[in-house]
Amino acid sequence: MPKIDPERLLNDLRHLRSFGATGPGVVRLSLSAVDMDARRWLAGRMTEAGLDASIDGVGTVFGRSRNAGPALLIGSHTDTQPTGGWLDGALGVIYGLEIARALGECEETREFAVDVASWIDEEGTFSGFLGSRSFTGEPVDEAIRNARNRDGLLLADALGHAGLAATPRVLIDRARHKAYLEPHIEQGGRLEAHGKSIGVVTTIVGIRELRLRFTGQRNHAGTTPMSIRRDAGAALVAFIARMDEAFRQLADADTVWTVGRIELDPGSFSVVPGAAELHLQFRDASAERLRAMESALAGLVRDFNAREKVSVAIAGSEPPEEPVTMDAALQTHLAHAAQALAPGAWEPMPSGASHDAQVLAHHVPACMLFVPSIGGVSHDFIEDTADAHIVLGCQVAARAAAEILRSLRA
Amino acid sequence: MPKIDPERLLNDLRHLRSFGATGPGVVRLSLSAVDMDARRWLAGRMTEAGLDASIDGVGTVFGRSRNAGPALLIGSHTDTQPTGGWLDGALGVIYGLEIARALGECEETREFAVDVASWIDEEGTFSGFLGSRSFTGEPVDEAIRNARNRDGLLLADALGHAGLAATPRVLIDRARHKAYLEPHIEQGGRLEAHGKSIGVVTTIVGIRELRLRFTGQRNHAGTTPMSIRRDAGAALVAFIARMDEAFRQLADADTVWTVGRIELDPGSFSVVPGAAELHLQFRDASAERLRAMESALAGLVRDFNAREKVSVAIAGSEPPEEPVTMDAALQTHLAHAAQALAPGAWEPMPSGASHDAQVLAHHVPACMLFVPSIGGVSHDFIEDTADAHIVLGCQVAARAAAEILRSLRA
Repeated sequence: MPKIDPERLLNDLRHLRSFGATGPGVVRLSLSAVDMDARRWLAGRMTEAGLDASIDGVGTVFGRSRNAGPALLIGSHTDTQPTGGWLDGALGVIYGLEIARALGECEETREFAVDVASWIDEEGTFSGFLGSRSFTGEPVDEAIRNARNRDGLLLADALGHAGLAATPRVLIDRARHKAYLEPHIEQGGRLEAHGKSIGVVTTIVGIRELRLRFTGQRNHAGTTPMSIRRDAGAALVAFIARMDEAFRQLADADTVWTVGRIELDPGSFSVVPGAAELHLQFRDASAERLRAMESALAGLVRDFNAREKVSVAIAGSEPPEEPVTMDAALQTHLAHAAQALAPGAWEPMPSGASHDAQVLAHHVPACMLFVPSIGGVSHDFIEDTADAHIVLGCQVAARAAAEILRSLRA
Repeated sequence: MPKIDPERLLNDLRHLRSFGATGPGVVRLSLSAVDMDARRWLAGRMTEAGLDASIDGVGTVFGRSRNAGPALLIGSHTDTQPTGGWLDGALGVIYGLEIARALGECEETREFAVDVASWIDEEGTFSGFLGSRSFTGEPVDEAIRNARNRDGLLLADALGHAGLAATPRVLIDRARHKAYLEPHIEQGGRLEAHGKSIGVVTTIVGIRELRLRFTGQRNHAGTTPMSIRRDAGAALVAFIARMDEAFRQLADADTVWTVGRIELDPGSFSVVPGAAELHLQFRDASAERLRAMESALAGLVRDFNAREKVSVAIAGSEPPEEPVTMDAALQTHLAHAAQALAPGAWEPMPSGASHDAQVLAHHVPACMLFVPSIGGVSHDFIEDTADAHIVLGCQVAARAAAEILRSLRA
């Protein structure tokens, strides 16, 4: 079995952390100068590991093994949120690098092909999942022409500044790329709460996002008796209670729903709110349950409008994201490796967050492995994972990688 | 009995409306050029009515009868909200002018003394109730030095621009001013809903205003299971439901409470709110009930903190305003006059809004008379009252004024 080098792994992660280091955190937005520095360093480390490394036309760093396929592709992202943590996607990319090295150093696996990718802009500084979408042939030309970052910089211009305007984009090789593995930090507190060290992802959850708008009657808060008020804020609060009850009936332990924003209009002490709005998001691993929740919500809206003095309507919604199931055979390989190296200390679990794996999964069998996040924190400067968990996760991923490739080559 | 002149009354109201007219509404902020124009016009009309009229050192227009006391003081305010209605305080001031004229024209009442006031800045463009506070000898020097309007203009400078810097302030004459009457539009929908034409105010309600802050844990809305969340927004919603239930137990039909503002932090779709704040106001005519509501709220806060994963605290509050009871004998005079001129079409009621009368009532027996607001609307350009109600209200007030003065002189 291949053996990873814990010190080499941790040193590479720590070196990558130095690009954009800000206190304990990292600010390394896609295609920024410091992000490009990190990409060039990464390509150099890939080259040293014997991979053919390049930065492609959208900024993805791709390290291709010189071995013939079938290949296991291991990837994640090295860009960060505006106030990002040091591990997030960086962990999975450096795992890929270390696994490519470890398999190359092992007699039994030295002929195995491991390609490694750092997909550009998973975090959506310009256009979320740009690298994985470009790699799998999904349409990105319109985004390249029109997407802008928060400062108004066009993606096309950012690529020009990075010297990538004329660089070709790397594309999936369907004859070669037969499996995708994305290791990642959990970004939640479940593994920690359960005392587990490894999560094997079953599904990346689907997402619904919508705004509900309540319309009542603005009035003087002193002279309008409770009995004749049409208080849009009070209606919103009552609606949330009914929605919570309805969703609780439909939910399993992993279903989540969040009211992330509430606004009352006009928002003053002395005025009964005439309008109110809430932002609702819900996520679940089951497409059927998401549809049932949508349906329950529509029923609540109808019922509310039929019975109450304040009206409610869905004022807008984001395109639905459907759940993406991880490949069953690949999950089994991860589970076997986890059980071998961390018996009883792993569990299957959904991913509540989005990942490049959900893009790749539409084109190639895909799987994900999680390591615990301390305190469940991510997308924050204090995001962290214990060294022992970082090392164990990479050992499990390397063992699974060897098994996956063995079975692909069989 | 004195008789008012409906046309003269309505014409004066309509002429006053022309100062600052904006569509159907009026913008006549305290001490603005147009407000000063209106004050000079009003002083002129008072002089024509035989009153000794002046604009005092804070801008109050005061018309003093040449008759010896005891005097009935009738007043309200001619300044408006930033987007004000045409009647609001203007109604009561022009009622006072018309009643002074009507009593002066009537054989039986021509010796009676009616003084008329338009108190400056009831609406708080600089400092709320400035005129009535100054008149009753409450401290206003600090406000004159430091209060500013929304544009940053100092009150002292505004008084200078209006040419009032060296003008003396009119003060209550306790030997003369034995009763205060403030006629006003209702600013609510109660009289209209009950099919009544006149309201006799029993009490001006007390007010409490405070902010409640909820502190939980900010988290990823996808990766944080419902069971381990400390969602400050969900806690806020749950708290409101308990508060509504507790307040409903304590309330009578006139008790009102309003959550006018809600903020969730950070306020995004994808983040479980780590903090949340609500602005709460409650009003009631009973000081005892207000204390019971404060006490219930404190109990809910204690209970919530003992049992829930999110903490709540009172983050700040405005100084309490206690309820102010209208003088019983004056209420009886208003009721008799209303019953004589509008039998069965009047009712006693609290004032849910604040008025200069609450300042005056601490120094002189005070009463208020309401006329209906169409649709309950006020502090809005479309604020209005039917002409018939305007005229009837003035007739009732004039009759009550004559009876009040008769009893004061007895």
